[in-house]
Amino acid sequence: MSLADKILAGDLRAAARLMRDLDDGFRSAAEEMKLLFPRTGNAFILGITGPPGAGKSTLVDQLTAAFRAQNKRVGVVAIDPTSPFTGGAILGDRIRMNRHADDPGVFIRSLATRGHMGGLSRSTGDVVNVMDAMGMDIIIIETVGVGQDEVDIVRMAHTTVVVSVPGLGDDIQAIKAGVLEIGDLFVVNKADRDGAERTARELSTMLEMKQILPGGWLPPVLLTEASRNRGINELVQEIEAHRRYLEESGKGEKIREERTVRQFTDLLRDRLFAEVYEHLHVNGRFRVLIDEMIAHRTDPYSTVDKILRERAVRAGNPS
Amino acid sequence: MSLADKILAGDLRAAARLMRDLDDGFRSAAEEMKLLFPRTGNAFILGITGPPGAGKSTLVDQLTAAFRAQNKRVGVVAIDPTSPFTGGAILGDRIRMNRHADDPGVFIRSLATRGHMGGLSRSTGDVVNVMDAMGMDIIIIETVGVGQDEVDIVRMAHTTVVVSVPGLGDDIQAIKAGVLEIGDLFVVNKADRDGAERTARELSTMLEMKQILPGGWLPPVLLTEASRNRGINELVQEIEAHRRYLEESGKGEKIREERTVRQFTDLLRDRLFAEVYEHLHVNGRFRVLIDEMIAHRTDPYSTVDKILRERAVRAGNPS
Repeated sequence: MSLADKILAGDLRAAARLMRDLDDGFRSAAEEMKLLFPRTGNAFILGITGPPGAGKSTLVDQLTAAFRAQNKRVGVVAIDPTSPFTGGAILGDRIRMNRHADDPGVFIRSLATRGHMGGLSRSTGDVVNVMDAMGMDIIIIETVGVGQDEVDIVRMAHTTVVVSVPGLGDDIQAIKAGVLEIGDLFVVNKADRDGAERTARELSTMLEMKQILPGGWLPPVLLTEASRNRGINELVQEIEAHRRYLEESGKGEKIREERTVRQFTDLLRDRLFAEVYEHLHVNGRFRVLIDEMIAHRTDPYSTVDKILRERAVRAGNPS
Repeated sequence: MSLADKILAGDLRAAARLMRDLDDGFRSAAEEMKLLFPRTGNAFILGITGPPGAGKSTLVDQLTAAFRAQNKRVGVVAIDPTSPFTGGAILGDRIRMNRHADDPGVFIRSLATRGHMGGLSRSTGDVVNVMDAMGMDIIIIETVGVGQDEVDIVRMAHTTVVVSVPGLGDDIQAIKAGVLEIGDLFVVNKADRDGAERTARELSTMLEMKQILPGGWLPPVLLTEASRNRGINELVQEIEAHRRYLEESGKGEKIREERTVRQFTDLLRDRLFAEVYEHLHVNGRFRVLIDEMIAHRTDPYSTVDKILRERAVRAGNPS
């Protein structure tokens, strides 16, 4: 029985195993993914992003509880900042999610920001696909909203929630402005703090300056206190409203298409490179080329040109 | 006269033009880079990273002034968080660096975190190479130290300074732990704030737990108040001490090699993909493949397999 069959039969350990195999770049994992792919495309993907310290994990925990109360199965992919040396995720086992640990309707996977064959965005896409095939109704992707990778990952989501808190510094406000355009919903968390109302008002003002087309979506701004479970039901309602908007406007289709394009091109880029890279290593040529470049007898641009030309000649392409 | 010739003759506008051409992915830009490459490899590259709000820009401004006082030419590459829609850098024209705007010994380039052909790390490498060929003695790369790309970029540097401030939240401390291992020097900025000494002590304790090999480098922890120019001379001295350590230990060579490998593999990955991607678009096949995947008649993994197999057959490789 293949891992894919086990996963489709509800085996959670098989799912965890396949995710590890994908991380490690095993060829067999791609074969399993081929079998799972026809069973994907049903989950609703929710992105949660915001600066460090905004209380995203607590919010994800409360949202998970709220979706479970609706009897929905919930997958959580938490992208953690990583120690670049150990490769391990710093925030580790998501201590705050512990209350869901024994619930078979919740599947949590932490991804460290490095150590993935072919980049974080591809790894996240793979994990989302596995959870999708497992029958998760909702998949929550949580990231720290700084950095190109993280923003790209959140854009995989159907609905993106941008979380902020009152009273952060100027730099952080600038970053918030950066994610202003990717948010479908905005949350000011820790709403008991001074300045929460003002932060929410400022956000609303900035959002109202955006050009909204007729029939378009004006992102709402909500106040929450995730640690005391306040404002969570309202947030769930707005998430559902956005989901209906996506279905009715046809935007949901578009998002699915973009995700497919992204997944295909990421995979193609990695596999093409891996093939040539391995070939360069087999005959020791890689070391020779690097030494030539270090000695400045040639340069990376000319070297890449040469490799591409050789391949074109072998393939019989007119160059 | 080629752009490269103009740049080597000291034309700053030609340098800015080439950097734009590189951003836009012009083929001609790669040709110019071939001409510049033999003139690279002389600059000392200094990475400055840390969380938003740590005062990195002010520190870079003061360091620039200090290096200028030593009559060194300084290049600054500032990686800014970006608006994903407009593609523009949010922090814009680095207002705080204005005092160096008329100094021909300072060249500043802001890079937004997206909109670069082939990713931020390659763009940064290109800009560093142009500045290096321009004869900049020191090139400072400033990034917000969150996200995989940003960490990779800082690892291009000979010496990396990790900046923190007293009194950040738990999540931010976790991220700081993430960059603990990439720092050669640690700075607690805004040292007039409560808790600065304690933050410095905690950092020192954490660093002392690291395994330092005999003859290795124990990263020092410094207190600065960049906005009042305090502690900057001490920081410059420690940067110079680390530079000597790199030379004497042979580690400098190793860093240069890693940078060459990285630059070559980034370029190879991008060019291989671009070639196949363009070819798929020429005959409209891309659209057909995506539609097949969206309809779940095939999957991305099988599709990529097929493309690679076809290429192998055309190239006469045994598959």
